[in-house]
Amino acid sequence: MSEFDLIRRYFADIGPPRSDTALGVGDDCALLEIPLGQTLAVSIDTLVSGVHFLPDCDPECLGHKSLAVGLSDLAAMGAQPAWSTLALTFPAAEEAWISAFSRGFARLSDAHGMRLVGGDTTRGPLSVTVQVHGLVPADAAIRRSGARPGDRVYVSGTLGDAGLALRRMLAGEGVDASLRSRLECPEPRVRLGQGLRGLASAMIDVSDGLAADLGHILEASGVGAEIELARLPLSPLVAEVVQGTGDWSLPLSSGDDYELCFCVPQRHEERVEAVAQTAGLPLTLIGTLSAAPGLRLRLPNGDRLETERTGYDHFCSD
Amino acid sequence: MSEFDLIRRYFADIGPPRSDTALGVGDDCALLEIPLGQTLAVSIDTLVSGVHFLPDCDPECLGHKSLAVGLSDLAAMGAQPAWSTLALTFPAAEEAWISAFSRGFARLSDAHGMRLVGGDTTRGPLSVTVQVHGLVPADAAIRRSGARPGDRVYVSGTLGDAGLALRRMLAGEGVDASLRSRLECPEPRVRLGQGLRGLASAMIDVSDGLAADLGHILEASGVGAEIELARLPLSPLVAEVVQGTGDWSLPLSSGDDYELCFCVPQRHEERVEAVAQTAGLPLTLIGTLSAAPGLRLRLPNGDRLETERTGYDHFCSD
Repeated sequence: MSEFDLIRRYFADIGPPRSDTALGVGDDCALLEIPLGQTLAVSIDTLVSGVHFLPDCDPECLGHKSLAVGLSDLAAMGAQPAWSTLALTFPAAEEAWISAFSRGFARLSDAHGMRLVGGDTTRGPLSVTVQVHGLVPADAAIRRSGARPGDRVYVSGTLGDAGLALRRMLAGEGVDASLRSRLECPEPRVRLGQGLRGLASAMIDVSDGLAADLGHILEASGVGAEIELARLPLSPLVAEVVQGTGDWSLPLSSGDDYELCFCVPQRHEERVEAVAQTAGLPLTLIGTLSAAPGLRLRLPNGDRLETERTGYDHFCSD
Repeated sequence: MSEFDLIRRYFADIGPPRSDTALGVGDDCALLEIPLGQTLAVSIDTLVSGVHFLPDCDPECLGHKSLAVGLSDLAAMGAQPAWSTLALTFPAAEEAWISAFSRGFARLSDAHGMRLVGGDTTRGPLSVTVQVHGLVPADAAIRRSGARPGDRVYVSGTLGDAGLALRRMLAGEGVDASLRSRLECPEPRVRLGQGLRGLASAMIDVSDGLAADLGHILEASGVGAEIELARLPLSPLVAEVVQGTGDWSLPLSSGDDYELCFCVPQRHEERVEAVAQTAGLPLTLIGTLSAAPGLRLRLPNGDRLETERTGYDHFCSD
């Protein structure tokens, strides 16, 4: 099979057909029909071998993750996933690799009703760029800039698991399968994001570490925050590391959590639990916003720590 | 200046503001308002250092070309450019390089009223992925699949110039500046593409060579074509090579022309000249479509050549 045939075989029919796709894969452009009253939300992200994933990464996981990263951005706007495009650069076209990659990409596409409508494959060092396209009613999108002093700060799931998995893999240590899955096959919080429409005043996905990403909300909203580290939701494995070392960098500044961090006006606090039930995810109150700028962390012993934003620098949409 | 500041400085404000951009660079997603009655046309393309451009390529030209490639896809659908997203991977953040790249990208964005609304920068081997977003009235998009037997086949501009420039540069020969510009700073035929709405039955941009790209139209439309090589529009430099060697590969199968190849029903033939005038570009009749499948080339001496599609294999949107 030629490379052209390989690509056509594995990428021409990913995700469910959608009636709002006027034209999908196979022309100069795809043609998308945006329903009346909906705004299009788009985000583009690149994963580079050796930077964002290990070169021997399971291609099925990579297919999953390369889409999950974008889905997490859609989740953070409260948008409904609709379409994707894929630009895949690899050194050689091996059918087993392409087949596994497309399987991981397709399974997550199916789960979210997302259709792959276009792409480009090129020869070169392995990297994957995905653009996601979602729909959100014109005024319902949740931005980073809507937070106000007094709002409560929440985070979904647990923090630092992916960072711990990466740390252990790089050290050549054995990694528990569920921990490893947090790094390699993150589940974007799409349903949660939509459930927070009309409730969250600001939201971001935690991809570069809580401190950096909450910092983006603070900057965009012109507010500060007090976070209680003792409240941070930690899995038992991460809690053990933090308690053993006193080092909070895993939950604060390791990347790849793909949880949502969001702010809720105090008067709506009691509605958060219902959203947690619907989304089937724990949502944890970790602090409060203030008018005074900056991120202040309160250690379990009562000490305070002023922090600068830490984490990876990215362009635009982290 | 940190990398973050560099990126913000050079990429946060590219292209004219647009009233249909609800939210641009700086959040998890950009938010785009698609006007009523318009369909969104999207295309994504990657340029990889050492594959699609020479590693020492002028960064300003690279910024131009990385957007021009996508604009050429919009042109081939008859779409009006609107927004872009940019995923840029580079080994080190050098201000001079980033500044020049963004200048080339911005100038072409301005020329087409296109706003950069999101992106991602990552560390890794140099490559550039751009997604373009254009608008076209719901039924006016020009696909590859609408050509019919008897339609006339046209091509814009001249063919093979970029291929000749590349060949000479790789051979270490001097290259005429205007020839080199055809390779490094191609002008996408956006106005022409829109001018052909309601006239062309099928269209594609010539990025992989005329034979391959016309082949995509033939396949999508279920037709064949007879092309007269003596009619191919050649610049004097390319004509000299073809006449000197009898080798037609430059105009037929070298890449990067970014001209438009399109089909027009015979009854509309006389309208093509008016479009050429408006677009300020020569449009050349090169052959006719037939019901019999396949691409048949008639050499100037009258011999015929059946050809298979040649050129680079790409995924989906060439």
